[in-house]
Amino acid sequence: MKIALAQLNYHIGNFESNTAKIIDSIKKARQEGADLVVFAELCVCGYPSRDFLEFKDYIKAGEDAALKIAAECTDIACIIGIPTENNKIEGKDLNNSAYFIADGKISAVVNKALLPNYDVFDEYRYFEPSTSFKCIDFKGHRIALTICEDLWNTIENPLYITRPMDELIKENPDVMINIAASPFAYNHDEERIAILGDNARRYNLPLFYVNHVGAHTELIFDGGSLVFDNKGDVVDELPYFEEAITYYNLKDKAGVELLQPTTMRATRQSDIEQIHDGLILGIRDYFYKSGFKSAILGLSGGIDSAVVCALAAAALGPQNVMAVLLPSRYSTDHSITDAEILVRNLGCKSETVPIRQITDAFESALQPQFQGLPFNIAEENIQSRSRAVVLMAMCNKFGYILLNTSNKSEAAVGYGTLYGDMCGGISVLGDVYKTQVYQMANYINRDKEIIPVNSIIKPPSAELRPDQKDSDSLPEYDILDKVLKEYLENRLSSSQIIEKGYDEAVVQRVIKLVNMAEHKRYQTPPILRVSPKAFGMGRRMPIVGKYLS
Amino acid sequence: MKIALAQLNYHIGNFESNTAKIIDSIKKARQEGADLVVFAELCVCGYPSRDFLEFKDYIKAGEDAALKIAAECTDIACIIGIPTENNKIEGKDLNNSAYFIADGKISAVVNKALLPNYDVFDEYRYFEPSTSFKCIDFKGHRIALTICEDLWNTIENPLYITRPMDELIKENPDVMINIAASPFAYNHDEERIAILGDNARRYNLPLFYVNHVGAHTELIFDGGSLVFDNKGDVVDELPYFEEAITYYNLKDKAGVELLQPTTMRATRQSDIEQIHDGLILGIRDYFYKSGFKSAILGLSGGIDSAVVCALAAAALGPQNVMAVLLPSRYSTDHSITDAEILVRNLGCKSETVPIRQITDAFESALQPQFQGLPFNIAEENIQSRSRAVVLMAMCNKFGYILLNTSNKSEAAVGYGTLYGDMCGGISVLGDVYKTQVYQMANYINRDKEIIPVNSIIKPPSAELRPDQKDSDSLPEYDILDKVLKEYLENRLSSSQIIEKGYDEAVVQRVIKLVNMAEHKRYQTPPILRVSPKAFGMGRRMPIVGKYLS
Repeated sequence: MKIALAQLNYHIGNFESNTAKIIDSIKKARQEGADLVVFAELCVCGYPSRDFLEFKDYIKAGEDAALKIAAECTDIACIIGIPTENNKIEGKDLNNSAYFIADGKISAVVNKALLPNYDVFDEYRYFEPSTSFKCIDFKGHRIALTICEDLWNTIENPLYITRPMDELIKENPDVMINIAASPFAYNHDEERIAILGDNARRYNLPLFYVNHVGAHTELIFDGGSLVFDNKGDVVDELPYFEEAITYYNLKDKAGVELLQPTTMRATRQSDIEQIHDGLILGIRDYFYKSGFKSAILGLSGGIDSAVVCALAAAALGPQNVMAVLLPSRYSTDHSITDAEILVRNLGCKSETVPIRQITDAFESALQPQFQGLPFNIAEENIQSRSRAVVLMAMCNKFGYILLNTSNKSEAAVGYGTLYGDMCGGISVLGDVYKTQVYQMANYINRDKEIIPVNSIIKPPSAELRPDQKDSDSLPEYDILDKVLKEYLENRLSSSQIIEKGYDEAVVQRVIKLVNMAEHKRYQTPPILRVSPKAFGMGRRMPIVGKYLS
Repeated sequence: MKIALAQLNYHIGNFESNTAKIIDSIKKARQEGADLVVFAELCVCGYPSRDFLEFKDYIKAGEDAALKIAAECTDIACIIGIPTENNKIEGKDLNNSAYFIADGKISAVVNKALLPNYDVFDEYRYFEPSTSFKCIDFKGHRIALTICEDLWNTIENPLYITRPMDELIKENPDVMINIAASPFAYNHDEERIAILGDNARRYNLPLFYVNHVGAHTELIFDGGSLVFDNKGDVVDELPYFEEAITYYNLKDKAGVELLQPTTMRATRQSDIEQIHDGLILGIRDYFYKSGFKSAILGLSGGIDSAVVCALAAAALGPQNVMAVLLPSRYSTDHSITDAEILVRNLGCKSETVPIRQITDAFESALQPQFQGLPFNIAEENIQSRSRAVVLMAMCNKFGYILLNTSNKSEAAVGYGTLYGDMCGGISVLGDVYKTQVYQMANYINRDKEIIPVNSIIKPPSAELRPDQKDSDSLPEYDILDKVLKEYLENRLSSSQIIEKGYDEAVVQRVIKLVNMAEHKRYQTPPILRVSPKAFGMGRRMPIVGKYLS
């Protein structure tokens, strides 16, 4: 049996374009003589569709799309992912389903049994889990078809009480197919290969795995679809961050033959390379899929906005990036110079809008209320917020989308101004720690100096008062980022982090800052997710509550 | 058996104060000769604890609190709600549990079986559902103890495949107890009585039901705990929006005797009265539980900010409310006068900060970029954002929390400025349609004119350009609000709404506006929830996606 894997970039709710893409791949695969072409989980509607799924019209649109796709499936079969109505009275209204389509009609339906409902996942919000399991016979093969999480109930810490493959294996299948929507995180590639390979070994079956590629607001899908032999070894790995269609011969349980040059990467990308490529895809799809073309950002001369500017230029083309210099009375000369050099190196557009007269006007209007009180965070934030008002006015006048330039370390400890530098349509670096931003800057400069070295080596500063340095308010970033990772990603308490050898006062201060900034993070833009635990939909903390200290 | 119901206001994560409250009620109930005192679901930690539950220290703190509570339970028993570790290897790490505590120790544990995971609920994110059921014998009675949703699997549209009471009834209990955390919506009181009464009738048992009271960021709990006889008739209803402890004699299956004057309301409150009282509790608890005392808001002379100001004065005391008038070149004289009259009527504090020089400074700074281009939304938004910068500067200088004054109709169609009038720590009216805001203003004026009648009767305007009216951009609010309700709350598509008799062009325009404003709402403050479908955690829509038209 000749099997094609189609790793495509879908658009949530765009049944028309998704269906067209699927049909196009069916036609290609038929031309190549494939017997079966496999698409990803919920490919018909895109993932995650979230509360779109609560509209009956949305489910109906999926069914209509499936009929169109079925009509194309003559002389070839396909597997698509689709939300379907649960035909039982009891339980939730929907199933997360796979259709096996052959001879122009839907010949089998498989429903997902294990519904992820942690981190960014809300599948139990919509879907009833399946409790019955059946293999699919096709062209002399018996296929154990499962959907994403169905293969992820690990042996060591099982999150679910059932394991679908333990049921399906009783019917003696000779191949596993798994359709997935498994979002990117920099450590996810290794984990994916390990867990899927374990399945292939455990059930002694080859495994074909198809993932999404493309980004939907905060979630980036990296592709990296996989084929394993029955020993659990990788036969093929599809490219990362781009679409692909690949072909295989399935001979028997022990035989999978690759029918085109391998796309498997000889050396794996470093975390920073993956994050870099993922963010570019994230920015590009955010703009493309929401119908916008041009980005704007404030360029401070510091490293964060420089990296965002470089990523945006790579994603959208430098001609579609407007960098705005917004000097205040506290901006240093070298900051302006560094920003100007970056603009020149990238070839993007730029404007300069000094904010001094604006902040003077605010301070003068507030003079009756503020007189006699010392300069403090109120005046600092006026600067940051004045810059945001200017940038948003340019968005409103010219149709740009503002890119947020806060990094994860700042977002974590609340070192940013709400309605000021925390503004934007999408946050590019909100899941990238400051120490990783430095690595990324060096990676961007790998062939030549794009980001001025001065922006990389100078001590970070918000430049909201004379001689301000980040280190006046925060621990050094190499310590801060480690403590943040223990608290945010590993869910350790302050006492557990201190036990690991970190300074008690630093740990308690950092955790207090993180907790006090929940209300700020609630109102910030969606953040492109590149780690296993990003701020946003995957991390749901109370705002009004007493935090453990 | 003498049973006490304790309807208390908890604080999420504040194990110390929650435990102290619980112990205080145990002591009171013991003095009154009660045999058993019943507290609400997850009372030990507060509800919803959200991702706090992912920290092992948090679960440990709950267990420590339970031990302290158990030590007080001599000569009296109690039921508390608590998150516990799931002691099975398979499944999620936690259970949502009830402890039955007697003779100083935990004598029975009941785990919740039906885990709500819709709207604002995420319980399947944390908890493994129970699959075993057992009654509790105590003082000659057999208690069927369940937790909230366990009684909510309706006959008509069952959301779950099991019904815990169908199992428990097999053991012949003579009473049902249900501990709950059921948040307020203006229609929830009727629904609660109907569904719980159905259970009492169906199983022919009296039912004691204890709910939370108090607010946690967006979620307001109204109390309204209930006692039913075995005919499903209400024996007692605890007060709304305040703490209470009440006592009953349980004689047998057919006999529940009220031991103090009834608190049951002879006439039910209107929706607007409930929303009014709920919002006051919501504001008060937001400030009290987050350790803040004073609110600030911009007072435009319009009805929305007037209603918010009156609610804040009722919640926090007028001396803790700072109303700021921020006139621009487009503010009308009557707006300023109306705002001044309101300040006088309420007795709150006020300041006036004209913004004209500020907006001039922005326009002058942007002159090189904007020259030759007509006045448009860019300049309108500069006004709104300048006001936000002034208000936030006063927050930063004096420690106020900014109250957001957007109503649900505006928030729905995006008729507001992101980082402008959409700012604030908490949104008071974000779940109150404009037509309801008018009703609320009249209710506030029920005894005397507090909100100037002129603010109520004049045509609504943002006053961001000369002679602007809301009706220039939006349908009349009585139509708009009905269409919004069909789309937002009833999940109808445009064609379904048009079928109901609404104008096609209006419906399509409204739905398009709602869809286009998702990115704005993503970045707005938490909204006090008073309806079955509020913006925020209970409504999760894709930002980048193609909406059905």
